[in-house]
Amino acid sequence: MAAALKNDLLLRALTRQPVPRTPVWIMRQAGRYLPEYRELRAKAGEFMSLCSNPELACEVTLQPLRRYSLDAAILFSDILTIPDAMGLGLYFEAGEGPKFERPVRTAARIHKLAVPDVAEKLAYVFDAVTLVRRELNGALPLIGFAGSPWTVATYMVEGGSSRDFSRIKGMARQEPALLDELLDVVARSTIDYLNAQIDAGAQAIMIFDTWGSALSPEQYRRFSLQRMQQVLDELQREKDGQTIPVILFTKGAGELLTVMAETGCDALGVDWTTDLGQARRLTGDKVALQGNLDPAVLRGSPEAVEQGVAEVLASYGDGPGHVFNLGHGITPDVDPDNVGVLVEAVHRLSPAYHSDISG
Amino acid sequence: MAAALKNDLLLRALTRQPVPRTPVWIMRQAGRYLPEYRELRAKAGEFMSLCSNPELACEVTLQPLRRYSLDAAILFSDILTIPDAMGLGLYFEAGEGPKFERPVRTAARIHKLAVPDVAEKLAYVFDAVTLVRRELNGALPLIGFAGSPWTVATYMVEGGSSRDFSRIKGMARQEPALLDELLDVVARSTIDYLNAQIDAGAQAIMIFDTWGSALSPEQYRRFSLQRMQQVLDELQREKDGQTIPVILFTKGAGELLTVMAETGCDALGVDWTTDLGQARRLTGDKVALQGNLDPAVLRGSPEAVEQGVAEVLASYGDGPGHVFNLGHGITPDVDPDNVGVLVEAVHRLSPAYHSDISG
Repeated sequence: MAAALKNDLLLRALTRQPVPRTPVWIMRQAGRYLPEYRELRAKAGEFMSLCSNPELACEVTLQPLRRYSLDAAILFSDILTIPDAMGLGLYFEAGEGPKFERPVRTAARIHKLAVPDVAEKLAYVFDAVTLVRRELNGALPLIGFAGSPWTVATYMVEGGSSRDFSRIKGMARQEPALLDELLDVVARSTIDYLNAQIDAGAQAIMIFDTWGSALSPEQYRRFSLQRMQQVLDELQREKDGQTIPVILFTKGAGELLTVMAETGCDALGVDWTTDLGQARRLTGDKVALQGNLDPAVLRGSPEAVEQGVAEVLASYGDGPGHVFNLGHGITPDVDPDNVGVLVEAVHRLSPAYHSDISG
Repeated sequence: MAAALKNDLLLRALTRQPVPRTPVWIMRQAGRYLPEYRELRAKAGEFMSLCSNPELACEVTLQPLRRYSLDAAILFSDILTIPDAMGLGLYFEAGEGPKFERPVRTAARIHKLAVPDVAEKLAYVFDAVTLVRRELNGALPLIGFAGSPWTVATYMVEGGSSRDFSRIKGMARQEPALLDELLDVVARSTIDYLNAQIDAGAQAIMIFDTWGSALSPEQYRRFSLQRMQQVLDELQREKDGQTIPVILFTKGAGELLTVMAETGCDALGVDWTTDLGQARRLTGDKVALQGNLDPAVLRGSPEAVEQGVAEVLASYGDGPGHVFNLGHGITPDVDPDNVGVLVEAVHRLSPAYHSDISG
């Protein structure tokens, strides 16, 4: 039996229930801006050595929670675990981001891809989830995650990070059925992967679509949104009587928020290029919204951070359905003290926007 | 006396007058994808040696016109000529883009910045304009350009290309009056610079706001849009009885197109992440639209290029006010033959959208 959650603000906000204050967590909160992370990372050697060791992944997941009064843990992992489990050979080159030894660029390679046995190949992820849940002991909810099929597929085809996605965009135009086949096997793998995270104890799910907005709106609907929909439709949305909220995040979504809100997800991540008030109008308040402070603000003074927090809270305005976060991941050069300022400011300033309930 | 224009399709489309077919030009049409450009560039040595030599800049400007039936020339130059004229020391490191020897990061440095004497310091630009006009001899219109004050200022403060604009965004939050001062001197310099280009013979003007969409919508209005408005308000919009149309282009503008259309500009550049039909609705058909093929399409097959052209034309639909272009600059790895396919497809497919006039 899972212990009852002591702090369920995140789950309540994601399902648009009243809360006494706005919950807050930070994308990449377990990461390089923390000296204790860098220390562990230096000992572990490769980045993937951290991800693939459940004890280390658990420790890294918990590090920011010891410093800050955050309202959620998010599993320390990577969006490319699935293609790695498919045999593409994930590795990281210093300063260059993720790469694959064997990218998939031909019909022959794509035909051979199969949904991996996640229970075997990605056991390290689910073991980390179980460990984190045990360590949290009901203090906070744990968020599990995956990349969107489109975003994961960009790395599989391009072989790593890309500036302009020329190979996969070429495939989208010249061999769309082949790209559909690739996206389908990634989507089906993602379904297994996220459902296994939920079985292991993940209490909310976030799908990161970092590169969906590199597409035209029409291509976005076909190649990115449709595949997130496929995943959403097959996820277990309840576990042990608890709703498992799902957050979709397409960076730079802008007007695409409108169609994203129609997928049946619970919440949308929003970056700072869309005002939260505008995002509420675009989505008709059908979903909760998560975001959207510009991470660059965290490199300013404590006063600037507090002002940034105040502006984000004001832009969302009154009522439930807001989870405070950055609009993208925190960067390695941030002073950890500024994260404390951010969290404290959300705690102090947000109750005014929830005055309709007695906290 | 300037010769009468033989092909004025661009100027008519930019002012939303009827045309028999959609005019077409390509951002960075004079550039590295052309072998004859690379040859000249190798002889000239530094990139700026091409820009600062009027004969070479003229030759490079004309190169794509010898290959393709384009409807406009655009001056070969750089958006950072103004800060270079202010004494910041522009240089280019191979593979790293533009850099400044002396970026401006302190109040003391910014207080000392002055509008340069463009007639003296940037004579090479106006001489190139005059030369191109003479060579064109009325065959096609010549587009002059500048960066937006915000975009130029990002390079001046960051010292070069930036991933997240941390320094200038810090200034925007902590010393907004100082940033206003910087933007004002850049805007006033841009006014002088563009008016001198018009005096020298530029027949349309484009303002490139490559980085405006890195800001929040509120910051965009204050730091980017307002300064483009300042420039617009002081440009000569007519010369020798001819209207000088002005195109604003904020990459990734999305919904910002609505406020951009209210500046009094003639046309807006649109990238491929906004559908042209949607852009028409956002702007209420108040302005002409220029764009918006994804440059990645040019790396596909000739059939894919033609299909891409057809889709862009269809997304704009019937009527005047469309200038065909890419949604961002052409990349160096494009096969020049595909540019020919693009131009030919616009010529062949676009008359169907202008059936209301007898071409």
